[in-house]
Formats: sequence, C-alpha cells, structure tokens
Amino acid sequence: MVALLTRSELEALDRADELAPFREEFELPADVIYMDGNSLGPLPKGVPGRVAEVVTREWGRSLIRAWNAHGWMRLPMSVGEKIGRIIGAAPGSTLVADSTSVNLFKLLAAALEARPGRRVILTEVGNFPTDLYIAQGLAALLGRGHEVRAVADPVAALADDVAVLMLTHVNYRSGAMHDMGAVTRAAHAAGALTLWDLSHSVGAVPLRIAEDGADFAVGCGYKYMNGGPGAPAFLSVAPGLQADLRLPLTGWLGHAEPFAFAPDYRPATGIGRAMVGTPPVLNLAAFEVGVDLMLRVPMQALRAKAQRLIDVFIALVEQACAGCGLRVLTPRDAARRGSHVALAHPDGYAIMQALIARGVIGDFRTPDVMRFGMAPLYVRYVDLWDAVAVLGDVMRGGAWREAGFAERQAVT
Amino acid sequence: MVALLTRSELEALDRADELAPFREEFELPADVIYMDGNSLGPLPKGVPGRVAEVVTREWGRSLIRAWNAHGWMRLPMSVGEKIGRIIGAAPGSTLVADSTSVNLFKLLAAALEARPGRRVILTEVGNFPTDLYIAQGLAALLGRGHEVRAVADPVAALADDVAVLMLTHVNYRSGAMHDMGAVTRAAHAAGALTLWDLSHSVGAVPLRIAEDGADFAVGCGYKYMNGGPGAPAFLSVAPGLQADLRLPLTGWLGHAEPFAFAPDYRPATGIGRAMVGTPPVLNLAAFEVGVDLMLRVPMQALRAKAQRLIDVFIALVEQACAGCGLRVLTPRDAARRGSHVALAHPDGYAIMQALIARGVIGDFRTPDVMRFGMAPLYVRYVDLWDAVAVLGDVMRGGAWREAGFAERQAVT
Repeated sequence: MVALLTRSELEALDRADELAPFREEFELPADVIYMDGNSLGPLPKGVPGRVAEVVTREWGRSLIRAWNAHGWMRLPMSVGEKIGRIIGAAPGSTLVADSTSVNLFKLLAAALEARPGRRVILTEVGNFPTDLYIAQGLAALLGRGHEVRAVADPVAALADDVAVLMLTHVNYRSGAMHDMGAVTRAAHAAGALTLWDLSHSVGAVPLRIAEDGADFAVGCGYKYMNGGPGAPAFLSVAPGLQADLRLPLTGWLGHAEPFAFAPDYRPATGIGRAMVGTPPVLNLAAFEVGVDLMLRVPMQALRAKAQRLIDVFIALVEQACAGCGLRVLTPRDAARRGSHVALAHPDGYAIMQALIARGVIGDFRTPDVMRFGMAPLYVRYVDLWDAVAVLGDVMRGGAWREAGFAERQAVT
Repeated sequence: MVALLTRSELEALDRADELAPFREEFELPADVIYMDGNSLGPLPKGVPGRVAEVVTREWGRSLIRAWNAHGWMRLPMSVGEKIGRIIGAAPGSTLVADSTSVNLFKLLAAALEARPGRRVILTEVGNFPTDLYIAQGLAALLGRGHEVRAVADPVAALADDVAVLMLTHVNYRSGAMHDMGAVTRAAHAAGALTLWDLSHSVGAVPLRIAEDGADFAVGCGYKYMNGGPGAPAFLSVAPGLQADLRLPLTGWLGHAEPFAFAPDYRPATGIGRAMVGTPPVLNLAAFEVGVDLMLRVPMQALRAKAQRLIDVFIALVEQACAGCGLRVLTPRDAARRGSHVALAHPDGYAIMQALIARGVIGDFRTPDVMRFGMAPLYVRYVDLWDAVAVLGDVMRGGAWREAGFAERQAVT
C-alpha cells in the first residue's frame, strides 16, 4: 500500500523513470490520457513512415517483385522470430499469422491430434470468449465427443482425460495472472499439453515460455505490442512438438514448397507449416515497428513500472473515490496480475463513457468492469493523478448520469 | 484471329478506349510494362492518402474510439457488401474476412455439414493448390472418411456421394474459365452444393453469382481488385443457406453479441457469423480503395477490352515469335477464358526472368507456364506491342540463357 500521495511526488517519479523517453516514440493526442493500450496500443511514430514506404515504394514501385526484393515473404517468420525473443520462446518456434482466434483453432486441433486418447479441452470460467468459442466450434466440428470443460480452478481439475489445458495468461477482465511455469508443470504431470493465450501479457509482462515449458502459445499484436488495428496475431510451438505437428488449416504458404504447386499437401519443416494464406503486408509492416520498439525495452523495468503504476492508481482511487462504490477486481499482489486495473461498479459503462468524454480513455467489459491499462512506455505517474482527479469528479458529481452516457455503442 | 498488326493501329485502339482514363488512377513505374495484375494489382493512387489517414488520424488521434467513430467495426460488412455488388451476390451475403484459404476451410466445412450423408469433395485436377490442400486438411481433420476427389471433368463425375463441388472459376495456370451457371445447375441436379473460388475472376470478369445459383464463393483481394499485398479475402453465402450455416471457426466477432462476452457461442444472424477475429484495418482500408475504384468500372467494357487484349497479344506473339517454341495454353474462345494469357515453354522460368529484367513483368507457374495478366484498367494496347517486341527479342537472341535468369527466387 502506498502512503497518501501528492501530484508533485508523482512528477518526481516521472523524472526518475528510466522508461520516460519511450513516451516520445508514440503519437499521443494532447487532450487525452490514454489508458486503453490493453485494447489498442497507440501509434508508434515510426509507423506512418514505414507504412508509407511499404505502400508507395515497395508496392507502388516494385509491384509483384516486392515479395522477394523487400522480403515480404519472409515477414511472418522474421517478425515471428523477433516476437519469439520477446516471449522467451525457443528460436524457430514463433510465427506471425492470421488472427488470435484462427491460431487458437490451429493449435487446439493440433493438441487434440497429439493426445488422441483424451477428450477434454480444459479451461477456465471467465477465459476470453473467443478462446471458449473456438474450442466449442472445434469440438462440434470434430463430432467425436470432445468436451470443453470450463472450471473455476483448472489446475485442480487436471485429470487423465484432459488433452490440453487452454488458459489466457492474464485475464482480460480482472487482470489476474497465472503462474505459467507452475501451471504448465501441473498439466504435464497430468499428461496434458498447455496452450497459453498471451494476448494480455505480451509486451506487458516478461515472458519466458520456453523455460516455463509451454507447449503452444498464441497472442495478439494490437494491444501492448502497439501493432495497430487488426495487427496479425502470432503463434508459437515448442520445438519438440513441431516435427509431428498436424495442423488443420493446410494452406499453400504452409507447404514445404509453395511454389512447386504440387497437388498434395506436404507441410513445411518447422513452424513454417503454421502459415496458411498470404500475410497482410501493410498491417504486418506496421506491427513490425511496434515489435522493434518493444525489443529495445528493458522488460524488468517495464514490469516494475507497470506494477508501481497499478499500486499508485489503486491508492489514488482509494484516496479520491472512497465511498464511491468502486470495487478493485485486480489482485493486490503484484506477482499475480498483469498490466491493467479493473474497477467494478454497477454503472461502470456510463461512468467510463463520462470519463472518455473528459479525455480519460479506458474501456468497459460487461457487466460492470472498467479497465485502465497501465502501459509503462507512455503512461506517466502524473497521468494517474490527473485521471483519478477526473474519476473522482465524475463519481462525486454523478456526471455519468447525464444523457447519453448509458447508450451502448457497437464497440465498448 | 486478328490480321497483321502495326503499333499505330494499337495506338488508335488506345485512343478509342473508353477505359483508358482509368490508367491514371494507378501508380505505374515508367520503366515497366505491368502484366502481373493477376497476381498483385498495382497501387491505386487513392491508397497512400487513405492509408495515411487511417494510420495518422484514425488510429493516431481517435485511438480505440476509432472502432466506432471511424466505422472500423463495420468495414468487413460494408466492404463485403460492395464486393457483393461486383460479383452479383444477393444483398447481405458477402463479407470480407481472413485469407482465401481460411475462407475455403470455413465454407467447405459448412458444406459438408449441410450434406451429412455425402462424403466427397469434388474438384478439378489442376485447381489452385491451396484449394486442394485445404480440402485435404479438412478431410483429414474430420476423420470421417471424406474424400477429396480431383478429376479432369468434374461435371461428368457428379454423383450422389458428392457433398460439394469446389472449383476455381478461372484456372490460375491456363486462364480457362468454367460456365458457372451450367456447372452449378449440374451440381444441383446431382444434389451437390457448389463452392466457387473467384480469385482469378473477381474484378476481371462480370460475375452474377446469385443468378448462376452459386451456393458459396470465396475470393482474393490483391489480384484484379487491386487491394494491396495480403489484402483480406472475401466470402459469400447464398441467402437460403445462411440461417442454418454451421461454420467451424467460431470466433468472437462472429458471435451474435460479441461485446456481451457470453460464455457460449451463438452465431450472428446472417453472413456476420463468418467473421472470426479482428479485421486487419490497414489492409482492409487499402482494399476498399480498390473496391471503390472497381465499382465505377463498366464491367461489360472491361470484359470486352480484356478479351481484345488477349486476342491482340496472342496475335502479336504469333506474329513476332513464330517458331520460338511458345505454346498458347489459354483457350482461343473468349467465352471460355478469364483475363490472363498463359504461354508455355520448357525454359519459361528463365525467359520470364529475362523479360522482367527488361521491364516486362509477368510471372511464372511451374513447370513451364508464363502468365501475362490483361488487366484492362491499366494495360494499353501499345503495351502489348512493346511487351511482345521484348519477348521476340529475348526469344530470338536467347537472352534468357544469360547467367542468373534460371536461378529460382523464393516467390516466382
């Protein structure tokens, strides 16, 4: 717990912050405090130039030749390899492809193929819905009695019928984080494989998936990796599983020789077989800028600042909004949480709309959760002060009860 | 057959060409004759500005709010609807999503679900490999005895065990085109569904898939639609099949209420259920520029010019390269071909490299096919003259035997 704080103390923390220079690498509107990097990271300053180069010079002038001349064909592997370093994967095990949902499908199907005698996809109640939906859809498609078993305590539910334990490392609502190493060891002891969704941890939490023994991982490019709207996702497969990896989406770019145009599918050696169709080059080039930026970040410092931001934010909320009916969902223990804070309130949706109208941008997750992303590359300590000042004002004045704030928009 | 031609006759054809102004809408390098729009269309001049706007203004300034404020969330449906007009689909049946390969997987699986008593995916020898591979991968995944049957004459092979007839409308090698209406009627008479891959016909051939009775269609954004490298693909489902459509990739954005974050999947009404993950906004925005451009094109004029370009090109090749050992694979009958010309030669790869080195850009498909795309929006009649002059020079001089031209690159 942090003692009573002043804005000048927070200014001092910013002055001492070794990550402070990274804020200059992002375009951030002057009238906004951005706390939604857990949903869509802001624009790295290097992106407009890089995208313009890809569009105008590479596509415009090199045309079809750019696939070779500008390395477009290698991007899924080369950017994947860089992400592999960020998540602590073994070399040659990470690839950029498709969306997180599609990659979940590929790897879940591969996991079931690798554990043919087992029928359960074990997961957690409250896992991100697409993870649940994709598993449900796969089980229905296979029609062989597979069950998606969502429980409150998945480690306790490990059993000899579990083929794969599928978990999101950091929960999208509460921000609670699993101990990847311990959970993976428990799964392996039960003979199950593990599939980790890193969407809410990559670029926010130091990861070492190889050391932790993770079998499969997927993740998202547009959150803390700042890869831009609809950035392609990534997937990673432990080296020992790659040789026998049977994937269900056998597209031409995963073929051993795509340009042989052979009539029968033969998978590429290694992780390359997880490619399916042609990669979205513009989005992928933008994503690489975010990846390159992240590669320069000292991850332990990132982690330390994120946790301090969360501690300070919660302390400020308790200081400024005592008795406002806000409930902190995020674990108080820094070792057990990711990089966002979740505050619950029955009128959370309208409160968040009122905050956004005043330039404090977080987001809302049904039924009652307001999320505030603590992305240490651009969120300053003083931002916490200013954001909570607005929050306190909104809460005390009941501003969220004004007309319009409760009206739901398409994306909330 | 066209009589002996002169360059000035071709200049006259260009002067009389009602499509000629469209060439001004593309960035085309001055030192290149671009005949590979069947693989990657050139850059529409509207793209750099639109992409810069999406990156700098929408992402950079609106941040997460852009999903509502700039309509990002609606793009897959709104751009899909525009494509639906181009392919003659019924309103509300076309969506932009994923890659062509992934969309093939979705719709093939849905077709098999809709014909549970039938076990055959019927297709054509020489269909584009990813279509074959995806079908093979699906059959292997299901493990219920489905067979991918590739035959020379698929209509003759229709039988009561055929669940779905999957064909590419225009063959990627020869350019031969199926009669979609006649083939679909034959398939329906046999109780089979049809899945048409429009990758080599959309934006090149007038399509009326609803009138032709097509059940399912997929297609590519980066060829004749000029959507940019890795543009997302599209899919279309006949209205009568949508209500019971069971898709295997049940991602959150295909849910009836994605932002309800319900634990169980419930498909959206209509074609929206075919969405899976977050769309690649940068590539999608670029694609929309190409789609909007195509919506302004008089398709019958486009078709007429494409066929005349092909006739003239073949006549010029026969005029300039008689005895060079080039074989025309493309049908002579305009009604039976798409929009590219295929010339076969045992040294086709090296010949194409020699052409590219001299600024005539087509491409090569193993084992011996040189492809020349006749995209009428920017290919001029004089380009044919100039390209064939280079081809004749290369053929007569044996220039392709020079060092380097036979060395294969990653993408050919």
